[in-house]
Amino acid sequence: MDQNTPPRLVAFRADGVDRYGVMRDAGIVDLTPVFGSRFKGLQQIVEAGALDEVIAAAEGRAPTFNEAEVEFLIPIAAPEKLICIGVNFPDRNAEYKDGQEAPPYPSMFIRFPRSFTGHNQPLIRPPESPQLDYEGEVAIVIGKGGRRIAREDAYDHIAALTLCNEGTIRDWVRHAKFNVTQGKNWDRSGAIGPWLVPFHDGAQLDDIALETRVNGEIRQQDRTGRMIFDFRYIVNYVSTFTTLVPGDVIVCGTPTGAGARFDPPIWLKPGDVIEVEAEGIGCLRNTVEDERC
Amino acid sequence: MDQNTPPRLVAFRADGVDRYGVMRDAGIVDLTPVFGSRFKGLQQIVEAGALDEVIAAAEGRAPTFNEAEVEFLIPIAAPEKLICIGVNFPDRNAEYKDGQEAPPYPSMFIRFPRSFTGHNQPLIRPPESPQLDYEGEVAIVIGKGGRRIAREDAYDHIAALTLCNEGTIRDWVRHAKFNVTQGKNWDRSGAIGPWLVPFHDGAQLDDIALETRVNGEIRQQDRTGRMIFDFRYIVNYVSTFTTLVPGDVIVCGTPTGAGARFDPPIWLKPGDVIEVEAEGIGCLRNTVEDERC
Repeated sequence: MDQNTPPRLVAFRADGVDRYGVMRDAGIVDLTPVFGSRFKGLQQIVEAGALDEVIAAAEGRAPTFNEAEVEFLIPIAAPEKLICIGVNFPDRNAEYKDGQEAPPYPSMFIRFPRSFTGHNQPLIRPPESPQLDYEGEVAIVIGKGGRRIAREDAYDHIAALTLCNEGTIRDWVRHAKFNVTQGKNWDRSGAIGPWLVPFHDGAQLDDIALETRVNGEIRQQDRTGRMIFDFRYIVNYVSTFTTLVPGDVIVCGTPTGAGARFDPPIWLKPGDVIEVEAEGIGCLRNTVEDERC
Repeated sequence: MDQNTPPRLVAFRADGVDRYGVMRDAGIVDLTPVFGSRFKGLQQIVEAGALDEVIAAAEGRAPTFNEAEVEFLIPIAAPEKLICIGVNFPDRNAEYKDGQEAPPYPSMFIRFPRSFTGHNQPLIRPPESPQLDYEGEVAIVIGKGGRRIAREDAYDHIAALTLCNEGTIRDWVRHAKFNVTQGKNWDRSGAIGPWLVPFHDGAQLDDIALETRVNGEIRQQDRTGRMIFDFRYIVNYVSTFTTLVPGDVIVCGTPTGAGARFDPPIWLKPGDVIEVEAEGIGCLRNTVEDERC
């Protein structure tokens, strides 16, 4: 185990094969040869409650791949649900400048997994819009399903943590009367990763620092302790209307400071490097490329 | 083949097993014994482009189950995408009474398959709200995937048609600042079915009658020819931002006349029978039950 870093489970593609393993500072320990017959991917490991077993199996094994030679994949490839919480940090409601009070319940929308790419991969700017924007967020992965989960039990239902750059095509978010769906679902416009960190202790979520940098410049910086709707509330609220199942992913909201907030707005452009970092989880890094149509 | 009815593919559960087959007036021809090793469900048949092959195989076989002894399932169990179009018939925009012009692009939101139940099953009214409402809609099932599909090619990408009662918990639709997500995703609050009708001819969609009845009373009645955003436009627009894949389901909007429109509103209650019928597709029938928590 590396010093001062949590165990980290990665999904990646190498030598033309989708694999998973444990991330070390010295490289990735591929565990597909050990567990491949039991678990197709990290999603199946989460569903089986076997995160710690897989991590333990990496002990004593040497890294098999360098970070530079693999393609990082979204940790949970096809969650039954991928829910995003909107307007969940102070000042975010005010950014909308519509004179409305902060709403009593969280805003939420759904993204398709194909709207995300993995760590170190380029976000794709489509020819239809120059308004590609970042939103750095913490994401939780459900380990134990349930309906109407009580606030006080919520943390027992979280298996792992990861990060999300909830990349957005800003003008398409307001195409319609209601709903941000189409601005939030452009293929590979966002990213999830770099890995899963198993969740065992409330301190991993309660008040951690969250920061987004573009080309090294800090654009978003806040702490999860200031979230309007905290993680426990989110699990409780979402599970009121839908049954959560293992592998479900909830992306929990972004601090103020997206590119749309600047006057004039600053959109992402090819060559930019966006880093979303959270204390105890890691740093999700992506570049930007124009789509090749 | 029955007279005057299109071929109909059904997903159903009988004798404790999930099955599929062809619906006849005299009963269901179970085709799981014939194709079960090739296709797990109707979704895999759509993905393989094998709808017509499966229908042809039913010729000359006797029905194996009566409609009354099976549990109808959602035709496509786990589509990669299940997208719903909002505010898509004349007068629907005016129903919001917010003084806003009709938007230039369709509103859209995403539902999870678990928010739907099958034909003849009860819609579930949860204890959290009495405001269960109906919305009768035509749904298209994508057969050939693609991105940026041209309007004129759109129909080539549709494999089948079905119906949706896009059941809604009305007060939860406006819980938040944006997005209707949580009011549209209560477990088994809506229905999809009763079956898939293969799509071969534009006349099956261009201007068909769509009607919703509650306890026999007509509540919604319109024609698809009056849709603000037609089926071709929807396929083109959605595929602009996301790659459509076989099995994706798009629910294309409801006429005016949902229960919320009445003054005072008329919500669904246990014992009600809701029928969504469209010309050439069929009639999706559901009852209502209170959730047993």
